[in-house]
Amino acid sequence: MAVIVQKFGGTSVGSIDRIRHAATRVKQAVEQGHQVAVIVSAMAGETDRLVGLVRAMAQVHDVREYDAVVASGEQVTAGLMALALQQLGIEARSWMGWQVPIRTDSVHGAARIAGIDRERLAERLAAGQVAVVTGFQGLSDAGRITTLGRGGSDLSAVALAAALSAERCDIFTDVEGVYTCDPRIVAKARKLDKITYEEMLEMASQGAKVLHTRSVAAAMNHHVRLQVLSTFTETPGTLVVDEDEIVEQQVVSGIAYSRDDAKITIIGLPDRPGVAAALFGPLSDAHINVDMIVQNISEDGERTDLTFTVAKSDLDRTLALLEEHNKELGAKRFLPDSRVVKVSVIGVGMRSHAGVALTMFDALASRGINILLISTSEIKISVLISEDYLELALRALHTAYGLDAD
Amino acid sequence: MAVIVQKFGGTSVGSIDRIRHAATRVKQAVEQGHQVAVIVSAMAGETDRLVGLVRAMAQVHDVREYDAVVASGEQVTAGLMALALQQLGIEARSWMGWQVPIRTDSVHGAARIAGIDRERLAERLAAGQVAVVTGFQGLSDAGRITTLGRGGSDLSAVALAAALSAERCDIFTDVEGVYTCDPRIVAKARKLDKITYEEMLEMASQGAKVLHTRSVAAAMNHHVRLQVLSTFTETPGTLVVDEDEIVEQQVVSGIAYSRDDAKITIIGLPDRPGVAAALFGPLSDAHINVDMIVQNISEDGERTDLTFTVAKSDLDRTLALLEEHNKELGAKRFLPDSRVVKVSVIGVGMRSHAGVALTMFDALASRGINILLISTSEIKISVLISEDYLELALRALHTAYGLDAD
Repeated sequence: MAVIVQKFGGTSVGSIDRIRHAATRVKQAVEQGHQVAVIVSAMAGETDRLVGLVRAMAQVHDVREYDAVVASGEQVTAGLMALALQQLGIEARSWMGWQVPIRTDSVHGAARIAGIDRERLAERLAAGQVAVVTGFQGLSDAGRITTLGRGGSDLSAVALAAALSAERCDIFTDVEGVYTCDPRIVAKARKLDKITYEEMLEMASQGAKVLHTRSVAAAMNHHVRLQVLSTFTETPGTLVVDEDEIVEQQVVSGIAYSRDDAKITIIGLPDRPGVAAALFGPLSDAHINVDMIVQNISEDGERTDLTFTVAKSDLDRTLALLEEHNKELGAKRFLPDSRVVKVSVIGVGMRSHAGVALTMFDALASRGINILLISTSEIKISVLISEDYLELALRALHTAYGLDAD
Repeated sequence: MAVIVQKFGGTSVGSIDRIRHAATRVKQAVEQGHQVAVIVSAMAGETDRLVGLVRAMAQVHDVREYDAVVASGEQVTAGLMALALQQLGIEARSWMGWQVPIRTDSVHGAARIAGIDRERLAERLAAGQVAVVTGFQGLSDAGRITTLGRGGSDLSAVALAAALSAERCDIFTDVEGVYTCDPRIVAKARKLDKITYEEMLEMASQGAKVLHTRSVAAAMNHHVRLQVLSTFTETPGTLVVDEDEIVEQQVVSGIAYSRDDAKITIIGLPDRPGVAAALFGPLSDAHINVDMIVQNISEDGERTDLTFTVAKSDLDRTLALLEEHNKELGAKRFLPDSRVVKVSVIGVGMRSHAGVALTMFDALASRGINILLISTSEIKISVLISEDYLELALRALHTAYGLDAD
C-alpha cells in the first residue's frame, strides 16, 4: 500500500469546521487504500498572534524561546485534526515534531531538517493509523524545539514524504493549483495540469506565492511528486514533477510577478577596476541581496551609471550604506525608485526555442511599456517595469505566449 | 545556595505586562542568592479556550489528543516568561514538561507524577540559570504529553520542589495568602501567617479555593514548605508547614464554605439490613461521591428517613439512579434540595480542646440558623445549612471563635 502525505495550510484548518472538512479529504485517501500521513499548519492567524506575543515581550529575543512559543500553534491543530479523524471513524493520532522526531540543526527560527526517524511512524501507518504531524517544527540535537521559518510546513511535508518514500505529497491550499498567471489579474489564466520542478522553482522565486522555494527545491532533490490542490473543491490540482513526465512542453509555462523589489541607480560612478566590489561588498556584508544588475557602457571611460535592485524592505538600509561608503565609491548621486515591479516569463521550453525574449520585448513595446532592467536565466526572462503597467504587461504577455484559456 | 520554586497561576501571567511583573518577583529571589525554578500556568482564559476547541470538535474525545491541545497553553507562557527574565538581564530558559522530563503515568487528563529527572535541571540551576518549567503537564512512558487535571500547576510546583529539595515552594496568586475566612464575605477575616498541612488540606477540601487538595497532600507527604502569596503586593504570604513549626496553635484556624453540595432526603426507606448498600452501591458504581450522611432513628422499626449530600453537578444523575433502583429500595419519596451550603470550622487545636462543636451550635442557634446535617473529623466540624444563611453564619462563627481582626 502506497503512502500519501497530505499537507493542510492555515486557511484549510482555520476553524473547527474547516478542520472537519479537511479530515474528509484525509478520509478519501484512506478509503482509496492509502497509508496517510498528514502535516498541519497552525490555524490561520494563530502564528501571527503568537509571534505578536513574543514581539510584545521582546523586540530582540532569544530565538529558542520564540520557537517554543510559536510551535505551539501546530500542536493545537494536530490534536484537533486527530480528533476530527477519529470522529469520522478513522484511527489517528497526533505527533509533535519532537515525538517523531523530525531532527533539525540548531538554527532556531530557520532550521534545516537533518533527518526524520521513520521507523515508529511507518509502523503505525502500516498498521492502518493515520499520523497527524505538526508542520513547521522539529527537534534540535540539544533537545530544543526548532521552527523552520517561512513555508516551513510545506517543507515538513516534503521531508516526510521523502522519508516515507511516499507516492505523492499533496499540498492542500485555498487555490486550485498552479496557474499560468495570477487569475486575480489575468482572467484568462489557466490552471496547469503539470509543471516541472525547475519551472515551479522559478515561479516561486519570482513571486508566485502558491509554493515556497525551499519546499520545491527539497521536492526536486528528493524526487517527491508534489500536487498543489484546493481543500475546498474536488478538482484535481497541479502536479509538480520531473521534466520527463511532461510529454508536450510549452515554451512558456507561466508568468510570475513580484512587487517586492526596488531599484537604485547610481549616477556618475567612477569607471575603474574594483568599483563593483567596493559597491557590493558592504551590501553583502549586511546580508542585503542584490538581484538584477545592469551597468551602462561608459561614454567617456571615466564615469558610468549602474542600476540594481534589492528587496523593497532593504531599500532604506541600502541607501544608508551607500552614503556611508561613498567616500570610497565617489559616485555623484543615488536615485532610488520603489514604484517598480518585476515580471518574469518562465518555461523549460526556452532551452530549445529561440525568440522567446523577442516575443516579450515586442509584446511590451506594442503597449508602450518601457523596460527598465532585464535579467535572464536558462528557463526565465525577467524584466523590471513601472508598477503602473503591471496588469497591462501580464495580460499582454499571457496572450503573446499563447497561454490564454479558450 | 538554596533552591526556591516559584509558581505563577493564570491570573499572574494573564498578559504580557503581568508576565513582566511576575518576572520581577523571580528577579528578587535571584538577587537574594537563590537558585530559582519557575512553574507557569497558561495565561488566564487560555486553557478554557483550548478546552473549548477540543469540545467543539468532539464532545467525547480521545483524552491523549485533549492533552496535546491543552498543554500548549503553558508552553506559550514558559517561552514568554523566559524572554521576560532575559529582558531583566537574568539568564533563563524554558523547559517543556517532556524536556525535563516530568514523568507521569498514562492516565491522560488526570495523570499522576511518577518522578522528575532532576539532574540536567539541577545542573543548569547550579550554573545560575533560571529554569521556567511548564506546569500542569508531563510525559507518559509511551512518550505522549499528559496533563495533571485541576490544580495541576500547583502540583507540578510541589513535585519540582520535592525533586530539587527546595527550601520553599512559593505559590504566587491573586490573593495575599490563606485567610481565616473568605474576606469577600467576612470583612474581619485575617490573613494567616502560618497554617498546618492538615488544616490546609481540610480548608481546601471543604471549599477554600486558594490551594488544591492534591498539591497540599503532595506537599505534606514530601515535607515541602509551601508559601501562598500575592504576585501583586510585596506582603509576606501564608506558610503551610508542619504542625511543630507553629508555636501557639489556635483552636480554630479557619472557616471554609462550599456552595457545591446538594442534599437528598429519602422518605420512608425500609429499615432493614442491606438497604444502605442497595442505596449507595449504584451511586458508587457511577462514581458519584457521597459526602455527609445522616439516618434518622426509625420510630416504628419499619421505615426511616435518610439524608445525604452529593455534588450539585451530580444531583440529576443521582436522582435518576435512585428512581431506577427504587424497586429494590422501596422508598416512598426522594426530596432533593440544592439550596444548601456547607460551612466547616477547621483547626488542629480541636484535638485537645473540648466544646468546639458546642460553640458552633450555640453561635448558629443564637442567629436562628437551622442545622440540616452535621459531619465531623478529627480537626473539622461541617454543618449543612440553608444557603440564605451563609453570610450570617460565617460572620457569627468567625466572631464566636475569636478570629476577628482587631
